[in-house]
Amino acid sequence: MDHGVADLPRGPLDLYRHKASFNWKDMLLFLEGEDIMAFKRQVFTALEGDPVFARQPGEDVPLEKMRELTFLRVKQLFRYDFLPTDEMMENPWKGVVFNDCLGMYDWAMSAKYFLNKAMFGATVASTGSGRHMKFVENIENMTTFGCFALTELSHGSNTRAMRTTATYDPATQEFVINSPDFEAAKFWVGNLGKTATHTLLFAQLYTPDRACHGLHSFVVPVRDPKTLLALPGVLVGDMGKKLGQNGLDNGFAVFHNVRIPRENLLNKTGDVTPDGRYVTPFKDPNKRFGESLGALSGGRLSITRMAQVNLKLALIVAIRFSATRRQFGPQNTEEIPVLEYQLQQWRLIPYLAAAYALDHFSKSLFMNFIEFQLGQMMKEKSERQADMGREIHAMGCSSKPLCSWTAQRGIQECREACGGHGYLAMNRLGDLRNDNDPNCTYEGDNNVLLQQTSNYLLSWLHNKHRDGVRIESPFHTVDFLDHFHQILETKFTATTTEQCMDSAVPLAAYKWLVCFLLEESRRRLEEQRAQGKDDFEARNSSQVYYCRSLAIAYIELNCLQRFAAQVSAEDTPAGLRPVLSQLCALYGLWSLSSHMATLYQGGYLSGRKPNELVQMAILALCSQVHNHCSVCVLLYFLPVVLYKNLWATVMQGDKVLERPSWWKEFSSDKPVVGSLRPKL
Amino acid sequence: MDHGVADLPRGPLDLYRHKASFNWKDMLLFLEGEDIMAFKRQVFTALEGDPVFARQPGEDVPLEKMRELTFLRVKQLFRYDFLPTDEMMENPWKGVVFNDCLGMYDWAMSAKYFLNKAMFGATVASTGSGRHMKFVENIENMTTFGCFALTELSHGSNTRAMRTTATYDPATQEFVINSPDFEAAKFWVGNLGKTATHTLLFAQLYTPDRACHGLHSFVVPVRDPKTLLALPGVLVGDMGKKLGQNGLDNGFAVFHNVRIPRENLLNKTGDVTPDGRYVTPFKDPNKRFGESLGALSGGRLSITRMAQVNLKLALIVAIRFSATRRQFGPQNTEEIPVLEYQLQQWRLIPYLAAAYALDHFSKSLFMNFIEFQLGQMMKEKSERQADMGREIHAMGCSSKPLCSWTAQRGIQECREACGGHGYLAMNRLGDLRNDNDPNCTYEGDNNVLLQQTSNYLLSWLHNKHRDGVRIESPFHTVDFLDHFHQILETKFTATTTEQCMDSAVPLAAYKWLVCFLLEESRRRLEEQRAQGKDDFEARNSSQVYYCRSLAIAYIELNCLQRFAAQVSAEDTPAGLRPVLSQLCALYGLWSLSSHMATLYQGGYLSGRKPNELVQMAILALCSQVHNHCSVCVLLYFLPVVLYKNLWATVMQGDKVLERPSWWKEFSSDKPVVGSLRPKL
Repeated sequence: MDHGVADLPRGPLDLYRHKASFNWKDMLLFLEGEDIMAFKRQVFTALEGDPVFARQPGEDVPLEKMRELTFLRVKQLFRYDFLPTDEMMENPWKGVVFNDCLGMYDWAMSAKYFLNKAMFGATVASTGSGRHMKFVENIENMTTFGCFALTELSHGSNTRAMRTTATYDPATQEFVINSPDFEAAKFWVGNLGKTATHTLLFAQLYTPDRACHGLHSFVVPVRDPKTLLALPGVLVGDMGKKLGQNGLDNGFAVFHNVRIPRENLLNKTGDVTPDGRYVTPFKDPNKRFGESLGALSGGRLSITRMAQVNLKLALIVAIRFSATRRQFGPQNTEEIPVLEYQLQQWRLIPYLAAAYALDHFSKSLFMNFIEFQLGQMMKEKSERQADMGREIHAMGCSSKPLCSWTAQRGIQECREACGGHGYLAMNRLGDLRNDNDPNCTYEGDNNVLLQQTSNYLLSWLHNKHRDGVRIESPFHTVDFLDHFHQILETKFTATTTEQCMDSAVPLAAYKWLVCFLLEESRRRLEEQRAQGKDDFEARNSSQVYYCRSLAIAYIELNCLQRFAAQVSAEDTPAGLRPVLSQLCALYGLWSLSSHMATLYQGGYLSGRKPNELVQMAILALCSQVHNHCSVCVLLYFLPVVLYKNLWATVMQGDKVLERPSWWKEFSSDKPVVGSLRPKL
Repeated sequence: MDHGVADLPRGPLDLYRHKASFNWKDMLLFLEGEDIMAFKRQVFTALEGDPVFARQPGEDVPLEKMRELTFLRVKQLFRYDFLPTDEMMENPWKGVVFNDCLGMYDWAMSAKYFLNKAMFGATVASTGSGRHMKFVENIENMTTFGCFALTELSHGSNTRAMRTTATYDPATQEFVINSPDFEAAKFWVGNLGKTATHTLLFAQLYTPDRACHGLHSFVVPVRDPKTLLALPGVLVGDMGKKLGQNGLDNGFAVFHNVRIPRENLLNKTGDVTPDGRYVTPFKDPNKRFGESLGALSGGRLSITRMAQVNLKLALIVAIRFSATRRQFGPQNTEEIPVLEYQLQQWRLIPYLAAAYALDHFSKSLFMNFIEFQLGQMMKEKSERQADMGREIHAMGCSSKPLCSWTAQRGIQECREACGGHGYLAMNRLGDLRNDNDPNCTYEGDNNVLLQQTSNYLLSWLHNKHRDGVRIESPFHTVDFLDHFHQILETKFTATTTEQCMDSAVPLAAYKWLVCFLLEESRRRLEEQRAQGKDDFEARNSSQVYYCRSLAIAYIELNCLQRFAAQVSAEDTPAGLRPVLSQLCALYGLWSLSSHMATLYQGGYLSGRKPNELVQMAILALCSQVHNHCSVCVLLYFLPVVLYKNLWATVMQGDKVLERPSWWKEFSSDKPVVGSLRPKL
């Protein structure tokens, strides 16, 4: 395994090695940069050399053992301290890359680590005050192990409907934490199942005057750090087996009037005085809510990034397999690699293009987020800062769906493209699918989140119509909407396959598509309201085919725009441009192909030709790009079971050749056929 | 749990109980019939009452234990002997239903049972002769436990390329079975991992004159039934963990010149005389190959059926959840079931329609297959019998892809539609996804199989053009192609949503679509050949967007046609027709909606209206059908974890509230942060 810039390692892609038209070291350097490459090498080298992280492909680890191993690995990560806080602050991108690296090894481990350090630790630090720093410091000596408890059994998406209460008792200067019933149990909390000693808990804050001040967060001890036994009044436990990520102990907690000191309230957005009065620096509670919206985007942008890492891992497995597996051929005697089949290329290569597009997309979104966060830290209160928050929120609410679904579908395609062998656990495609799966539903269900994005776009159109404002946003993702009418006049103009093989074609089509869907969504909403529906009903009846499609088209366009900008950027090496252009055009056309009916419906396309041109361009680009598929391994190196290693890996499995321990159950005690047959 | 016609059980669907416009007992009787209902009740009652089959939702069972439990359950099935051979012969449909029932419990168990009894036993009986009956009889007393070994490590789809050899040695009157290298190891063989004593092995038959007579099958002992230890010369073992179906021990075997008696050759299609001459009743080896094609369809039709069972199970879980889970609402105080959201309906209800369509489809395909098999048994050598074989083959090669993919996507949608809770193992959606997954790739990869179907359709067009034959097939699935030209003249005519809510609309569109794609595929193939490509290349370059889409459209049309015929059949109770019509129209329109771009491209649709009408009709039908969603539970009853039971099920899990066994790893031996930090 080689993470550096040594020569392209020999392996299953040898056949395609000489076909790439560019230097792979240049590509790696371009995608990563020296500094990040060195950091990744450092992390990978350490993990690979350390027996604590050793695994056997396809090994069968019981649930409890998996939880234990993951805990021991997290402990070991403390010892490595790969990325101290000051280095992370200096280059926040390294934090993302670090998560990439840990996740490539195991997302459950990465989650266990960051839920404690960031979701608990960093959130306590940023939403509390000096009096809470001890909780953060204790993470380092592991007398505190934290978790983040928001979701309840009956409420995930609707955070305002949470029912856990924190009632202030001035007599003792304590908050009383209570769960009214099991449906209000905190649920799904990572680390809470077996390990957490403290939780950052969200509860409705009540003052002695019985006034409810809405959701606030508190640090609540749940287990004794010396014994890991639950504290009095806390019913805390493990939710059991999940579809994946079983190294992470998701848990639940029910609180029976548990008392915590007044000071445990994280008091950045509001505090309670010793005598029980509620005080807040915010005059407008909506603004307080708005402030937290921006912070929540961090999680969604992380997931955006994590999903594309999964897609890459799956592609490495499937493309290597396809380059090696031979089946049929022009003559009966000689078989060809399945990657040479147009059908196999069409199944996999567009996902390779998507991996390139989403890699850059997730990175550039993160850079936008950093800009926004810097403003927050500088206590920037400008209009622009608020606009940035809204735009980031709109992007995060659609980039997570785009990336997690693309990864979900891509991993499934990879699994199927490897045929039966893809069904062996050792090939890891099952774990990738299972571990990627929650990306589609947590931090907001994808379908529900998309509504936030379409609301954002519709509000621009509304403001333009009402006040004639110019449509222009801090990150320029909506600026083109200002030319709404002109764009709706445009038509598809390519007349040859060659013309079509250019990202300008899908870019133009997407701009039209977003404008069309925006106008259709607006019209649909108005129709619904005209039928007497209230806002809630009107919006619900305008999601399918309208607002939902709008949000998806918007973010796909944005992703494509950023990729196209990267391709043509001045500092992009000339030698890489041809292949990057192909990848970009392929990603754009392939994404666009799911919207062809709408393009015809709205008259952007007409006649036989356009659909055919797009299809032929996709196939031609797949064929061009597959020659460069060795670039795929550049995306990331990791130990994957190669086709040629399959036999060895099978033979190294546990008790492969042994007879079963229960062999006597076979050899004696033969069944008497029909002895139990029900008598009718 | 109630499998009979007692009153609709109380439960999460109560809210929707009063909304259904028909009697659910009528529906159950119509779908199943008295006899099958009684049989299913018998099987379920026995399994439910027997501790051998007891399970805990979401339990974590190690691989070896899973293999053992499955073996013990199969042994218990022998004792029950639910369906003796004579009863199965009397009503072969009962065999399918029996597999449904076992699969609803666990597909790995069902596979383990039927691989031994049918794939080994029944195949030995039907392809061997009197001298092989002992192997079949010994299954009953379990001194033989069989498996079916065709696939090799390097060859799955290309069966003719198998490399295991069986060389006849007249000196000892034995065959010498040999695997030239590990790439020719038999691979993926169910039951071979730990349990099989005998395998039905496919190998290239060589006579002493070094002539190869192609693939033949042999009964080869692999383990001593008394000890379950491997026999000399046989390297046999377990392939290890898979993505799912881990109760089934898939295995491999390498043969080192293993000698078996001459009589172990299954000699229906060819035999070797004691002195080493090859004799066969077939003059034409292609006819022999053709004969076996028909037999292979049985497996694909089974998978077609199995996949739709999985879809049903997932829908039961997701629809029950959606009827109970409340989130948001018009007022902040009152929340509504998520099933009331248009978006949730659109995600799930079309799959409910698909489940009805595919249930009937898989049953009626099976009836066609029985007709074909009867002809085979009667030694029918007519042209019609051959035509039936080809048509069954074309249908099975596309019905398996249609059903397995619909189930795969449907299960994924169900899993996501249940949000986080769908990610808990106890809700079974993960197992359903993992267990359904191989349906997409075994018995032929879906994408590869579709080529067989398009070849069949293209050959009809070719014969029509060349010889002017009338297009008419035994099961009438291609008859409409005889009106090819007239159909291509038709256009979409509906002008209102109401008109569109009729299966006649998608039926007409599908007929046009199949004709269009057939003509386009023919044209594409000719173009490729005109460019100088040989047949192999021309076909490979005509799959994506052409032949592949053609095969899919053909089988979707066929499925829809059969459903529509069922709805309007005379013996369909009048009270059920309205809801069945809605389900049928919904399935048709929803399936059709993935082909809208092609319909526009070819001019069948034009302008804004058609796409909008189809979309509005789908949404209206989803809304109508969701009121009948209680019919969903009629599809099948099974123990599912209901939303209201979630809490109880979590609390009943293993060691839920216990501290971890490794708690001291937490409490002492704290890590020194950075102690292992790599020095740069």
